[in-house]
Amino acid sequence: MDEFSFIRSIQPKFYRQSSVIKGISDDAAVIRPVDGDFVTAVDTMVEGVHFTRETMEPEHIGWRVLAANLSDLAAMGSTPRFYMVSITVPRCWSEKELQSVYRGMKQLADKYAVDLIGGDTVAGKELSLTVTVIGSVAKDKARYRSHAQSGDLLFVTGTLGDSRGGLEYLLSGQAACSKAHDYLIRRHRTPEPRITTASSLSSLQRIALNDVSDGIASEANEIAEASQVEVIINHEAVPYSEALSTCYPDHYQAWMFSGGEDFELLGTVPEKDWPTVEKTAESAGVRVTKIGYVQNMRSPSPCVWLDKDGRRERLAASGYTHLKEEGE
Amino acid sequence: MDEFSFIRSIQPKFYRQSSVIKGISDDAAVIRPVDGDFVTAVDTMVEGVHFTRETMEPEHIGWRVLAANLSDLAAMGSTPRFYMVSITVPRCWSEKELQSVYRGMKQLADKYAVDLIGGDTVAGKELSLTVTVIGSVAKDKARYRSHAQSGDLLFVTGTLGDSRGGLEYLLSGQAACSKAHDYLIRRHRTPEPRITTASSLSSLQRIALNDVSDGIASEANEIAEASQVEVIINHEAVPYSEALSTCYPDHYQAWMFSGGEDFELLGTVPEKDWPTVEKTAESAGVRVTKIGYVQNMRSPSPCVWLDKDGRRERLAASGYTHLKEEGE
Repeated sequence: MDEFSFIRSIQPKFYRQSSVIKGISDDAAVIRPVDGDFVTAVDTMVEGVHFTRETMEPEHIGWRVLAANLSDLAAMGSTPRFYMVSITVPRCWSEKELQSVYRGMKQLADKYAVDLIGGDTVAGKELSLTVTVIGSVAKDKARYRSHAQSGDLLFVTGTLGDSRGGLEYLLSGQAACSKAHDYLIRRHRTPEPRITTASSLSSLQRIALNDVSDGIASEANEIAEASQVEVIINHEAVPYSEALSTCYPDHYQAWMFSGGEDFELLGTVPEKDWPTVEKTAESAGVRVTKIGYVQNMRSPSPCVWLDKDGRRERLAASGYTHLKEEGE
Repeated sequence: MDEFSFIRSIQPKFYRQSSVIKGISDDAAVIRPVDGDFVTAVDTMVEGVHFTRETMEPEHIGWRVLAANLSDLAAMGSTPRFYMVSITVPRCWSEKELQSVYRGMKQLADKYAVDLIGGDTVAGKELSLTVTVIGSVAKDKARYRSHAQSGDLLFVTGTLGDSRGGLEYLLSGQAACSKAHDYLIRRHRTPEPRITTASSLSSLQRIALNDVSDGIASEANEIAEASQVEVIINHEAVPYSEALSTCYPDHYQAWMFSGGEDFELLGTVPEKDWPTVEKTAESAGVRVTKIGYVQNMRSPSPCVWLDKDGRRERLAASGYTHLKEEGE
């Protein structure tokens, strides 16, 4: 593969963001700040660890790695602007397949007018994609996981565990034979980061946000620790899709908490702001569900509690409850 | 290895850049723009491709990957501010060795007050480091390789080919037994990006810059193509170290042009600005040498010519002259 012709083939013909002063074509990209702060994150996905060719087409790999990154920006309440892609390519990947990976990223990027402004292409033994994203947010309006306070409502967008359901189905090697399976597979391969919902909540004075990459058990514990609070989750309220509970009746409850990679948003807001959250999500066509609340600010032992069947148990970051871990 | 304890171990205790609003601890970092533009680049280095454990200690690997990135920022005339590191780690690397890799980066970063503000840590089969750097530059003062014009002088910082000399010596497996070898090895393992020199030239209205990552034959061709000019290099003027010519009398002339990874700067300036370049480099303690000039703006066939022994030959990006390629 000729690196230069490959770079030319994936280079954008134009940039949508007027703040791109210099895109791909020099030692680095140049961007002009507008009002507000910049938000930036980087994520790597490696073949055999984060995805396999058995469960993903090249386009899905591209979509998904960018989705994971854009989800981080959404969790900061920021609007994505630019991305850079560093790809490590083993000999067994063809130029056509690589172009499909970039096309997958571009399909998602185009939805939000995000521009590819740089990257690197190197040889290696395993396919690996590192994506750097840069977004913008109004000054002092970045949303931290440390912003939860006593009395806040806990909410989550979408439904949970679907991505894991889709993955398990793909790993089973069966052909998708129902709409439910198609839905779960789509949720796994081409997740939708909740960018519009998050950035549309910019009018709220305070909101804590985390994106669901490792499962809400983990994300809720991160909020609890960062905010020094206790988070209570009402098991009955946690949203799951009918597709998931139908296809995986024995597993969906565990996957709702620890399935991960749904790239939904878990957040907390003051009770008075809940109608705004509901209205904003509705406008974006995104389901949003109240699943608990926050208590005990400045808690000496920040943690997550799960209310289920009239009992309260500690929910570990791994998704297991404290009591279950001790053998109950 | 516990990912969270590792991240804690490499997390900065404080940030030097006052524009860091949120460093490592949330879904993304938040930075506040000051005056001017942002410049950003990303580079990946893979074990077995860009470095080996035989020729590099973990600290050198860290230093070198960050140096390559900071060199890209220098070539844009920008001052580095932040970096993010995504690392893919095979099981055979210990946590202690990884910390050494980060220490190597930190040693270089500390010299220029560059802050580590984010990253990712994932498992994989081969060690791979992807570094994203962000710098700042005065508005419209980024230095492009497309800025060369007829009549400009061509110059280069430092000496060329040393990194290749160091690499060859390390690959030979011999113990370093002379100051010359020590020097070449140091130039290979811990190159100094020309940040101070580049950013100190901000008073100049126009300067074209490229950093020497693939050798000046390649970089000069990039300037020629991007600026649509012809670049003439005077072979006799190209600077090399005594260490290199002494240790590798049969190779140094080729390596000067195509050795690569010296991370020096190749640039062009109007003749009237040459004294400023000389003075600036002197203040930074960096050697700078006039090695040619630019002619034929809007050339229909932009290229690089090498003047040697009274003859003019075309210099290909690979470092070979056109005539030599045809068998001379």
